[in-house]
Amino acid sequence: MTQMRKLVNVADMKRDWWDDLYSRCRDIIARPGVYADSCRGKILASMFYEPSTRTNFSFQAAAQRLGAGVFGFSDPVGTSASKGETLADTIRMTAAYSSTIVIRSPQEGSATAAALYSEVPIINAGDGGHSHPTQTLTDLTTIAQKRGSIGNIRIGLCGDLKHGRTVHSLVEAMEMFPNISFYLISPHELRLPDYVLDRMKNVEQNFIESETLIDCIPELDILYMTRIQRERFKDAGEYRRLKDVYVLTKKMLDGAKKDMQIMHPLPRYGEIATDVDTDPRAAYFEQARYGMLIRMALLLEFMHLPREHPPITENDPDAAPGECVNPACITRSDTYLPRLVSRSGIDRCGYCDKKVSEMLL
Amino acid sequence: MTQMRKLVNVADMKRDWWDDLYSRCRDIIARPGVYADSCRGKILASMFYEPSTRTNFSFQAAAQRLGAGVFGFSDPVGTSASKGETLADTIRMTAAYSSTIVIRSPQEGSATAAALYSEVPIINAGDGGHSHPTQTLTDLTTIAQKRGSIGNIRIGLCGDLKHGRTVHSLVEAMEMFPNISFYLISPHELRLPDYVLDRMKNVEQNFIESETLIDCIPELDILYMTRIQRERFKDAGEYRRLKDVYVLTKKMLDGAKKDMQIMHPLPRYGEIATDVDTDPRAAYFEQARYGMLIRMALLLEFMHLPREHPPITENDPDAAPGECVNPACITRSDTYLPRLVSRSGIDRCGYCDKKVSEMLL
Amino acid sequence: MTQMRKLVNVADMKRDWWDDLYSRCRDIIARPGVYADSCRGKILASMFYEPSTRTNFSFQAAAQRLGAGVFGFSDPVGTSASKGETLADTIRMTAAYSSTIVIRSPQEGSATAAALYSEVPIINAGDGGHSHPTQTLTDLTTIAQKRGSIGNIRIGLCGDLKHGRTVHSLVEAMEMFPNISFYLISPHELRLPDYVLDRMKNVEQNFIESETLIDCIPELDILYMTRIQRERFKDAGEYRRLKDVYVLTKKMLDGAKKDMQIMHPLPRYGEIATDVDTDPRAAYFEQARYGMLIRMALLLEFMHLPREHPPITENDPDAAPGECVNPACITRSDTYLPRLVSRSGIDRCGYCDKKVSEMLL
Repeated sequence: MTQMRKLVNVADMKRDWWDDLYSRCRDIIARPGVYADSCRGKILASMFYEPSTRTNFSFQAAAQRLGAGVFGFSDPVGTSASKGETLADTIRMTAAYSSTIVIRSPQEGSATAAALYSEVPIINAGDGGHSHPTQTLTDLTTIAQKRGSIGNIRIGLCGDLKHGRTVHSLVEAMEMFPNISFYLISPHELRLPDYVLDRMKNVEQNFIESETLIDCIPELDILYMTRIQRERFKDAGEYRRLKDVYVLTKKMLDGAKKDMQIMHPLPRYGEIATDVDTDPRAAYFEQARYGMLIRMALLLEFMHLPREHPPITENDPDAAPGECVNPACITRSDTYLPRLVSRSGIDRCGYCDKKVSEMLL
Repeated sequence: MTQMRKLVNVADMKRDWWDDLYSRCRDIIARPGVYADSCRGKILASMFYEPSTRTNFSFQAAAQRLGAGVFGFSDPVGTSASKGETLADTIRMTAAYSSTIVIRSPQEGSATAAALYSEVPIINAGDGGHSHPTQTLTDLTTIAQKRGSIGNIRIGLCGDLKHGRTVHSLVEAMEMFPNISFYLISPHELRLPDYVLDRMKNVEQNFIESETLIDCIPELDILYMTRIQRERFKDAGEYRRLKDVYVLTKKMLDGAKKDMQIMHPLPRYGEIATDVDTDPRAAYFEQARYGMLIRMALLLEFMHLPREHPPITENDPDAAPGECVNPACITRSDTYLPRLVSRSGIDRCGYCDKKVSEMLL
Repeated sequence: MTQMRKLVNVADMKRDWWDDLYSRCRDIIARPGVYADSCRGKILASMFYEPSTRTNFSFQAAAQRLGAGVFGFSDPVGTSASKGETLADTIRMTAAYSSTIVIRSPQEGSATAAALYSEVPIINAGDGGHSHPTQTLTDLTTIAQKRGSIGNIRIGLCGDLKHGRTVHSLVEAMEMFPNISFYLISPHELRLPDYVLDRMKNVEQNFIESETLIDCIPELDILYMTRIQRERFKDAGEYRRLKDVYVLTKKMLDGAKKDMQIMHPLPRYGEIATDVDTDPRAAYFEQARYGMLIRMALLLEFMHLPREHPPITENDPDAAPGECVNPACITRSDTYLPRLVSRSGIDRCGYCDKKVSEMLL
């Protein structure tokens, strides 16, 4: 297979690649001392165009545990990026100094754009609401570690399923594994979007939708909690009513399986009561540690890839002229980027995945 | 003895522990090359909820000189901590990624609270006006290095003795060493607080109070200068009058012992004239270096301790309900913390050491 | 020769020193693996009193590729420096923790001042409009790498030659090499200053002045582009007219030599069109990488120098009392600095190089 040089979307992950990655992760867990020098002389560039403490710390710790150095910013204020340099130029400079680049940005498609100009591998650490694949790797690793393998489970996804990038990615990644049943637990107005449900049907993933957390709990092997953000509701009263229904408390665990695992991408803001923290089923703090460990496995692969001039990417000849309608798309600010369209069923913007039919013509 | 897993207060330091620590420090000074790899693969988390350049740099340098990596923040702006995550959750995440956590905070008792939730050792790098034990280690190391040992000295403490956390801690730490005489040199309104003087009497520490620096100088083996902050005075004229009396100049050293050592925690803002800097008795710049070296010895111990789940801490059953009256106490913002009381003579808040009789009942 | 302990000005570089440095750089390029541990246990202090992403990242990457650690700030907000500590005290503290200090400051002469108080080597990473010698090293390395050696070339310098510190330094450094011809390409109002032209005549450097880029291109071995800043023009219309004349496009390369090299200190803001980027003559992205590599060679030298008390510097007895007239000179804020005058033909301020005749008497 072609050597993977970027991790930008969940769709970049294939089963073989995951199996290799996870097997490396298991060895890192088993024999940490062996890896302390494995990226000696290598450098991670950590470019956070918006703050994300957890992801940032996790990558910095991962790189340094392998013996690599780290430079970068956790906020673009005062960088040349903030002074009007293009993303392309900033990436070329950063690639000149580093062995792998991690990029986090509020602009969707940033990591795809970065990869067009980088001599070193690119990792997407979150580009707006679009994609955050190392969070998905974290989730898969936690499930695999706590259960021995990923197949044959009933997983409850609870909270705001409409806006939750984390949940959409996890559902997509689960296509790689056999016999997964989903319990989709949310208020009606925060259901999984139809296009996700349609894809689940297409690939024959089992799911049940429910509005009640407590009723589903006894069935679950994994309960994945997510945040319900106040700003998603037009009506404050509606928010207060729903919020409490989706708060997990120790008492609600009475009917749960003894080996159910409770996960959460963190940070939480009340959707898991603190009395759950001491329950042996609470896996969300370990999840953070698995996130660092799987990132070590990823960096170990990417940092050793040879430096390579990226091929010159031209405009897609069939792409309509004009720009993406998505105001958060990287092509809106970085207008020199080649026009790209991805074609898989529906034509989509090659950066942010917005439907082309919605692009300006 | 029980393995120490945190350094939060001066009271945590026992003589045996200090002797071990200092002996390790001496070996680091004697054979620096031996230690360049001694914390390879380890990570220091450096969490500065308020800026403190000197302490922060000193820990970062110490960790890296041992081969460890460092991540963290020097200011909490833009971190998830600043977005409302609890200290407990932030600490659990940070501990997942690191081998030891250094925490600096304006909130008193933060480090004690952090230690309740951390799988890795906690070092207090200053929690408000409460405690800053590695400054005390710095001072002890400087005295030991410049004089060969710490006992049998006359030490002058000069400046604002009322508010100076550094001075209170040094006096307390000196209880471990024999035959120390203190010259307490300050304006009357900035005398050592009565509770410190009472403790000195209880443990039979010798002291003399004086308002005049110049008269004491000939007696001293160590002169420890501290800052007099303008904001401590109601009357600006009073400030100007007193300020100059407590400024050390080269001329004032005429009557001093040839081997007297001048110390200062730095930064200084005028209380030692720059013409003193080239005097061989000026030890305050070396003091900064000793601060890094003793922190290396401390990190060398802590970074190799095994990861351990902290025991679950319950409310002290005898603690009165309610909250600490100290508005700077960590329990005021982090209300989920278990109620703790420390009982040694007087009952005190288990976090900030404020008297329980002053707690709300 | 005396061991060099600071790199502050281009005048500090001698031909022998450059030859040694560059030969070390070539070996680092040839055998990178050999150097991954060569500064193990060493620490770079990176003190950026104003942001400069590129220079900062480049030094951080360089140090860590040699196995050294890094601490510092990329912006002085919240540091004790920003709270009123003198530069001298900040430097003494920083030197206590580090093996080499890199300093960037908007105040001219800062690095010279820093070197008076530092026990470790000082590198000037830019002090206002005054000096930025590692940019010059970057330029020399790029020329040497792309052409095999530095002598016998025709080099075009294009853009704002009046204000460009980069260009002035490059011209000065080129005095070390034989048979260099300069094409000085700029609008009349942005010509090289007379004092630079006078020095070129004195040392018999060949040069031609021109207002037209396109006419010079066929003659050149190197074309060094620089930015024309809008704020240099009183008249916005004049700016718009001139700006486009000095923008390099792919089309303009038709008449250029096949092996001409295009350089730029970066960041660029439009003065090289992006269609030039894929031309094989575009060397400006490689230039960034050479900048890191030559900084590795420099750090490798400096980090291994023994710690040394700087000699006490007294006021120059012949220096007039008073202060430098340059409002950006470090002596204006740090008034304790000894008065220094450098005498080479014209007497100049020993910090910022402003003529003494312009100093207040």
